[in-house]
Amino acid sequence: MDGFPAFLLDGYKSFMSDRYDPEQGRYRELADQGQSPTTMIIACCDSRAAPETIFSAGPGEMFVLRNVANLVPTFQPDGGQHGTSAAIEFAVAALEISNIVVMGHGRCGGIKAALAPDAGPLAQGDFIGKWMAMLAPVADEVSKYTLLTNKERQTMLERFSIRNSINNLRTFPYVKRLEDEGKLAIHGAWFDISTGELWVMNDEGDFYRPDV
Amino acid sequence: MDGFPAFLLDGYKSFMSDRYDPEQGRYRELADQGQSPTTMIIACCDSRAAPETIFSAGPGEMFVLRNVANLVPTFQPDGGQHGTSAAIEFAVAALEISNIVVMGHGRCGGIKAALAPDAGPLAQGDFIGKWMAMLAPVADEVSKYTLLTNKERQTMLERFSIRNSINNLRTFPYVKRLEDEGKLAIHGAWFDISTGELWVMNDEGDFYRPDV
Amino acid sequence: MDGFPAFLLDGYKSFMSDRYDPEQGRYRELADQGQSPTTMIIACCDSRAAPETIFSAGPGEMFVLRNVANLVPTFQPDGGQHGTSAAIEFAVAALEISNIVVMGHGRCGGIKAALAPDAGPLAQGDFIGKWMAMLAPVADEVSKYTLLTNKERQTMLERFSIRNSINNLRTFPYVKRLEDEGKLAIHGAWFDISTGELWVMNDEGDFYRPDV
Amino acid sequence: MDGFPAFLLDGYKSFMSDRYDPEQGRYRELADQGQSPTTMIIACCDSRAAPETIFSAGPGEMFVLRNVANLVPTFQPDGGQHGTSAAIEFAVAALEISNIVVMGHGRCGGIKAALAPDAGPLAQGDFIGKWMAMLAPVADEVSKYTLLTNKERQTMLERFSIRNSINNLRTFPYVKRLEDEGKLAIHGAWFDISTGELWVMNDEGDFYRPDV
Repeated sequence: MDGFPAFLLDGYKSFMSDRYDPEQGRYRELADQGQSPTTMIIACCDSRAAPETIFSAGPGEMFVLRNVANLVPTFQPDGGQHGTSAAIEFAVAALEISNIVVMGHGRCGGIKAALAPDAGPLAQGDFIGKWMAMLAPVADEVSKYTLLTNKERQTMLERFSIRNSINNLRTFPYVKRLEDEGKLAIHGAWFDISTGELWVMNDEGDFYRPDV
Repeated sequence: MDGFPAFLLDGYKSFMSDRYDPEQGRYRELADQGQSPTTMIIACCDSRAAPETIFSAGPGEMFVLRNVANLVPTFQPDGGQHGTSAAIEFAVAALEISNIVVMGHGRCGGIKAALAPDAGPLAQGDFIGKWMAMLAPVADEVSKYTLLTNKERQTMLERFSIRNSINNLRTFPYVKRLEDEGKLAIHGAWFDISTGELWVMNDEGDFYRPDV
Repeated sequence: MDGFPAFLLDGYKSFMSDRYDPEQGRYRELADQGQSPTTMIIACCDSRAAPETIFSAGPGEMFVLRNVANLVPTFQPDGGQHGTSAAIEFAVAALEISNIVVMGHGRCGGIKAALAPDAGPLAQGDFIGKWMAMLAPVADEVSKYTLLTNKERQTMLERFSIRNSINNLRTFPYVKRLEDEGKLAIHGAWFDISTGELWVMNDEGDFYRPDV
Repeated sequence: MDGFPAFLLDGYKSFMSDRYDPEQGRYRELADQGQSPTTMIIACCDSRAAPETIFSAGPGEMFVLRNVANLVPTFQPDGGQHGTSAAIEFAVAALEISNIVVMGHGRCGGIKAALAPDAGPLAQGDFIGKWMAMLAPVADEVSKYTLLTNKERQTMLERFSIRNSINNLRTFPYVKRLEDEGKLAIHGAWFDISTGELWVMNDEGDFYRPDV
């Protein structure tokens, strides 16, 4: 193992002077009293779509799960180790957050892999194929949409995937119950890396650009 | 579903003027050419410990997996849907990153749950207990360290957990091989929310505060 | 028949003072020398999407065909009275224009009718159903895209229809030959009435927002 | 295909700042509530005679059909694809417009072709001859009016054509019925490109210059 990457230490130094020092009181308070974020974001690991950056979030504001392609599985209490489900449970039951945002983004490598499961460097892999298989029924369906260009198909699957994850979220009994009681709101969002545009989802599942 | 949270739209507006506009060329380049981050960070969902914030990372720099307590399971190619393993495979095989940093933090709720599996709001939950059980051998061991105060025990388990995750990372054959070939470096880091201190791990597994 | 509508006369009066008088020389020149527009626009009759308005076009700049849903039929020299084909022939053979733009728009009533041919006030009509039947193979196909919301399906058919019209344009032998010779360029565009956004089509058939 | 024409993008940019921005509320309302124009204009494709320009029309005011020489065929419910008839049906049956204006103009190239069907670049064409043949009985008749100069003959055919189209409009049963019921008014207009003069038709079919 080499030394700790210098660019990370440089970044940390900037953080300390630019962010931590001015917000020192906030960090201490958050340490003493524990976190109480109102919002959980389920986002992708992609290096170009960090939720804290896109939403200018300060410390303590967002509980952030990130996996490949921001997928949510259905509720499967089978005793297995479900990291995404564990994070959802923690956010809802322990933190009592009031919003969950499933946030996708353009040019997602995971979605691309779902559309071409037999191509690319991950075709023979052990995990990506299995992970994205969660989306296989949707990906198979969209692969039949022959009038779409490749780019349109990718974008549509990114959106279908967000709607699919939101449907899956509602298979968690406590999520469903709290949403029905008006105590938890579920949202969808899609970020366009190229243009910086943010699209959010309405009740019909359509994406639109909100006024900001 | 209510409207999209206003504070997120406000944050997005700030992002557009403060970050996206000055870095527009960078975002477009990242969209056109794809991401090529050099570093993967495996971090916790905790709202107080966002890696991009702590390392002042710009777009495209970090591929970031976040789950509860920044755990890495062992290599289990059993056909199941392993989100964390899928992200590791994607980072190593598709993105060919050269650094993996497992980053923990102080006052971690997941670690606290691992130390008291029969207490708290998640004791009867479906997923958190199972997820943190990955750390049960280590947690059971540290619970016998009767000379530690509760706070020391929590901090020690946060650190043991980072070392445990790093050991588990090395059960992935391609991670092990690339590390042996000097093409991939694995690091540990721990962030103290209260003081803003960053501690990093050396080759012996010891944590120290680097000069910055 | 009542008198000529007063609001049209009011509008004409404004035109004379605001547009004709300042451009009088241009109008006289256009009358004396004939029109020589460089561009043909094939657009919809919709009252919300006038091409001269959207492109701020002056007199003599655009030869504009408008029919319901901006459709182009295939080349059918069967002796029938094909108004759209006549306009294309006039633009290409007599005016020797160098650009054809097929321009669609959001919330198109004709496209809506194509998606629901058995509903609405036109279901029993004599002509709309037949006219939109030109798009039936595409509309039937997109009606199978069950993952799309109604709004997405409408937007996608608006775009598919533009691509379909462009393909049909290329069945006109002189259009094809001139395009191959680099003397005629064919473009697609889509206008969003709600936001004012203009999207144009690239060589892959994808729509994007150009920098303006 | 080359890039999208720059002059169109420039025009669009002007539209956005000069027209869309001040009328943004109107555009959004028109998008949300649908169009409800009171008037249909049947005009020529000619680049010098755009109805929205001549009548200073705002968004949502005019449903505009444009074909070569603003012709209306007779009612022919033969199952063929009649674009002009489809637009009329859409305007009357779906939009319930209350005015139809057939608008011709001076120096019309289509009318010129009708007067000299064996000359000019379109003589051997596939569609223009057939299209203008709709006007052949009228054109043949006017060609016998040997006392007219060529310029007078052109102008007279432009006017005869408007009257002919209006007669043909009345062969559509629903047009006739609504006109008889006083719910739909039919108008004729003729625009002189050279002088900017607008002439409108009275009940006797005479054209006169209205006071404005």
